[in-house]
Amino acid sequence: MGHMAFRARSEQALERRVAALKGSGYDVGWSDGDLGHGPAFACNDPDGHRVELYYETEWYKAPPELRPALKNQAQRFPARGINVRRLDHLNCLAVDIKANRIFFENYLGCRLTEQIVMNDGSEAGMWFTVCNKSYDFAYTRDHTGTRGRFHHVTYAVDCREDVLRAADIFLENGVFIETGPHKHAIQQTFFLYVYEPGGNRVEVANAGARLILAPDWKPIVWSKKSARRGRLGD
Amino acid sequence: MGHMAFRARSEQALERRVAALKGSGYDVGWSDGDLGHGPAFACNDPDGHRVELYYETEWYKAPPELRPALKNQAQRFPARGINVRRLDHLNCLAVDIKANRIFFENYLGCRLTEQIVMNDGSEAGMWFTVCNKSYDFAYTRDHTGTRGRFHHVTYAVDCREDVLRAADIFLENGVFIETGPHKHAIQQTFFLYVYEPGGNRVEVANAGARLILAPDWKPIVWSKKSARRGRLGD
Amino acid sequence: MGHMAFRARSEQALERRVAALKGSGYDVGWSDGDLGHGPAFACNDPDGHRVELYYETEWYKAPPELRPALKNQAQRFPARGINVRRLDHLNCLAVDIKANRIFFENYLGCRLTEQIVMNDGSEAGMWFTVCNKSYDFAYTRDHTGTRGRFHHVTYAVDCREDVLRAADIFLENGVFIETGPHKHAIQQTFFLYVYEPGGNRVEVANAGARLILAPDWKPIVWSKKSARRGRLGD
Amino acid sequence: MGHMAFRARSEQALERRVAALKGSGYDVGWSDGDLGHGPAFACNDPDGHRVELYYETEWYKAPPELRPALKNQAQRFPARGINVRRLDHLNCLAVDIKANRIFFENYLGCRLTEQIVMNDGSEAGMWFTVCNKSYDFAYTRDHTGTRGRFHHVTYAVDCREDVLRAADIFLENGVFIETGPHKHAIQQTFFLYVYEPGGNRVEVANAGARLILAPDWKPIVWSKKSARRGRLGD
Repeated sequence: MGHMAFRARSEQALERRVAALKGSGYDVGWSDGDLGHGPAFACNDPDGHRVELYYETEWYKAPPELRPALKNQAQRFPARGINVRRLDHLNCLAVDIKANRIFFENYLGCRLTEQIVMNDGSEAGMWFTVCNKSYDFAYTRDHTGTRGRFHHVTYAVDCREDVLRAADIFLENGVFIETGPHKHAIQQTFFLYVYEPGGNRVEVANAGARLILAPDWKPIVWSKKSARRGRLGD
Repeated sequence: MGHMAFRARSEQALERRVAALKGSGYDVGWSDGDLGHGPAFACNDPDGHRVELYYETEWYKAPPELRPALKNQAQRFPARGINVRRLDHLNCLAVDIKANRIFFENYLGCRLTEQIVMNDGSEAGMWFTVCNKSYDFAYTRDHTGTRGRFHHVTYAVDCREDVLRAADIFLENGVFIETGPHKHAIQQTFFLYVYEPGGNRVEVANAGARLILAPDWKPIVWSKKSARRGRLGD
Repeated sequence: MGHMAFRARSEQALERRVAALKGSGYDVGWSDGDLGHGPAFACNDPDGHRVELYYETEWYKAPPELRPALKNQAQRFPARGINVRRLDHLNCLAVDIKANRIFFENYLGCRLTEQIVMNDGSEAGMWFTVCNKSYDFAYTRDHTGTRGRFHHVTYAVDCREDVLRAADIFLENGVFIETGPHKHAIQQTFFLYVYEPGGNRVEVANAGARLILAPDWKPIVWSKKSARRGRLGD
Repeated sequence: MGHMAFRARSEQALERRVAALKGSGYDVGWSDGDLGHGPAFACNDPDGHRVELYYETEWYKAPPELRPALKNQAQRFPARGINVRRLDHLNCLAVDIKANRIFFENYLGCRLTEQIVMNDGSEAGMWFTVCNKSYDFAYTRDHTGTRGRFHHVTYAVDCREDVLRAADIFLENGVFIETGPHKHAIQQTFFLYVYEPGGNRVEVANAGARLILAPDWKPIVWSKKSARRGRLGD
C-alpha cells in the first residue's frame, strides 16, 4: 500500500495530532500536499503502513453533465454498473494488532468499536472509527508475518439488494467473486469481495450500516469462535 | 394505438380463435406477419382497438456482446438505467367496458381477474390475464367518449426498490413523473407513470406481482370507492 | 414423504390424467378426498413417491381477525416472522431421474424447464412446471440409491431482501441455516435452507422468480460444471 | 411537547453548554434526572420548546428473552410489525426560524446542514445535526403563529423497502397514512406519516440516510420552489 490519509476536523485538530506525533518515532514529516488536498503530515504506524493527515481539501465540483438534480448530492446518480455511493472503509493487515491499536488510539484519537481477542489474550482484529460510522478502517492479523500490507478497500452501495445486484453484475461480466454476498457477524456488514484488474481486493458493502452514537461506547470483543458464529452463509 | 398482438399457445389454439372470430363482425383477416413473428390474424375489439393473434415467432438470439453469463436468461443484464426486466402489460381506454369484457372472454378466451363496477352497475375497468400473471392487459373507461385509445404500456423491474430507483433516475434526468411511486389497491401494483419523448405514457412497475394459480379464480369486484381506499400515497 | 398433490385445471383435465394413468402400472386408485380437497386419484412415480391428483377444492376463508384490508389478498399480511407469501415448490430425490422425467411429461403433462445432464449423458436433475412459474417441483439424483425421498419444500417471500431478513431472523432465533442465502445458477433462485423441528429441510426463496411465458420453451440443459459456475457465494 | 433532550459527549461538554446558557435568558436550571438519565440542565429555545441536556445515562440491558444473537446489537430483532431500528429525529414548529437557528448554533453547538430560505430572505425551515447523520432535528415555520409546537418524531427502518412494507402494514391495520411513502428533496428522506392513537404524528423513514462527514460542510439552501421540485410522488 502506498499510503492512506485522514482529514482532520480542523487546522487546530491537525496541529494537535502533529504535536503528538512529533518525536514519537512514528513521525515522518510534512509534504506540500497532493491531488485534492493541501499540506499533509505523514507518519508510519507500528506495522509500517504510511498514514497521512491533512485538513485543507479541494471540494469536488461536478462538471455540467454530471450535475445532480438535487443539490444536496455531490454528483448525478450514475445509473450504471453497481452505482457506488461512497468510499466506506479500508482494511489493512498487521503483524502486531495490539501495538497498532494503541498507536491509533493514542496518537490519532481513533475510537475502537469492535475487536477480536483470541483465547490466549492476543488481539487478532480491530475496527476503528473517526466519526459515527461504526468503522472507518479495520486491521486484521497478518498470519504470514509480513508487514505493511493492505487487505481491501470498501465501496458502499445503498442497501443489501444493491450488494446482491452487484454480485449479479460481477457474474455477468466475468469478475471473480472471492466470497459473498455474506453477512459478517462483526459490524454486521453485508458484503462481497472481488478483485480489480490491478490485483487489489475490493469489497462492496451496504451503506446503511450501524452508527455508533454513544460517546462512551464500549468495544465489542469477539472471540475467534463467536466472530464466526454469526457469519451467515459461510 | 396501432395494434396489440397476442401469441397463441399453439397453431391449433390460433386456429380455434380464428374460427371463433370469423364472421363475428370483429374479424379483419390474415396478414403475412411482421418483424419477429409469422402470419397474424387481425380483429377489432368493440372499441375499435386492433388486436392481432399469431403463433410463429422468431426467438431472440443475443449477439456475442450481449450474451448472458447464465444461459437461462435471454440477454446480459444491462446494468444501466432502470434495468427493465420484461414488458409486463398494456392498458387501453374504452367507451363501453362491458362490451369489451364480453369480447375478450368469448372470442379470445381471456380470464378476468379484477374489475371495477360502479354503484349503477356499469363497468368501469377490467383486468385480464392470458397466463398466470394476475393481469396482462387492462381496460379502463374513457370518460371523454373517444374510441380506440391507448393509456399506457408497462415495463416491469425486479422489485419495489427498483421502482423507487427508477424514480430517482427519472428525477435525475428531468423526466416528468406524472404520478407515483404508489401502490394501486387493484392488483397491488407498485408503479409510477412517466412519458416517453413521443408522448406516450409509460408505467414502471414491479415484476414480483401476484400470480393467479387457481383455474376457478373468481374476479375481484371493486366499487369506485373501494378501489381508491387502498391507494397508498394518493 | 407421505404424498404430494396437484390440483387439475378442471374436472375434465383430471379425468384425462386418470384415463392416462389407469393400467399404466403407476396407478393406485381413488380416495374420497382429504382436508381441503375432494376426491383424489393416487399414483406412484417410478421412484415410488406417492402423487395425488384432484380438482375439487375448498377455498380458504379468512376468519374476521385475519381478514385483509385489500380484498385481492387471501389473508391479512402477518407482519410477523419471515412473512411467507406462498408455498412455492417441492424438491424430491430420485434414483433414476430420466425415468421420472418421462413419467411426469407423459402421464401428468408437466413441462420441463431446466435440467442437469452429466457428461456421460445421464440425467442428474430436472425442474418442472405446471403453470407459468419457471418451476413447481424439482427432482435431483439420490446418490445413496434410496428411493422415494423428499429433499425440501420451499416457501416464497416477496423479494431478495426478505430472504436476507429471514436469515437474520433464523440467526436471531438459533435456527441452523444449512446453506445460503445464495443464488442458484439453475432457475436463478435466491434461497437459504433451514430445518424445521421435525427434521425436514425447508427452503426460503424469493417469489419474484422468472416466469416461463413461451409455450414452446426449450429446456435449459446444464452440465454439472455449468450449474456450479454461477452459484454465487458458494 | 413536554421536552426534548440531548446527550452531551462528555461531562465537560455538558458543563461548557451549561456555562454558555447560564444567564442567557434561555436557561431554566438543573433537575435531578429522569428515567434512564442523570442530572439534566433545562433551557427554552426562543420559540418556547423545553430542551434538556444531560450526560449520565443508563445503558439498556436486554432481558434474557430479548438478548440478541449478535452481541453488537442492543436487542433481539423483533421480527414483528415494522421492525423499527432506531429513533431517528424530531421535527418541531417555530414561529421565528432564524432566531431558533441562531440559538441552536450559538448555545448548543449544533450544525446546520440544510435550510429553506424564502425569496424575501426569511427562513422557513432548518435541519440540524449533532453527529454525522445529516440531521437529528428539524424546525419548520409555524404558519399559525402558535409557539412551542411539535410536528413529528421519526423512527428509522433499515431500507426503503421497509418503509413500503410499513405502509402495507399500516393499511392492513387501518392506520391512517397522512402522506407518503414519498421522497423529500430536502435531506432525501424516504418517509411516510401516520398518527399514533394519542394524536401525535409519527414519521417512518429509512435509516440508510446520508451522512455529513465533512467538518466544513456548507448548508444547502433551498428556496420554497426548489424544495418542492424534487418531491417525488407529491
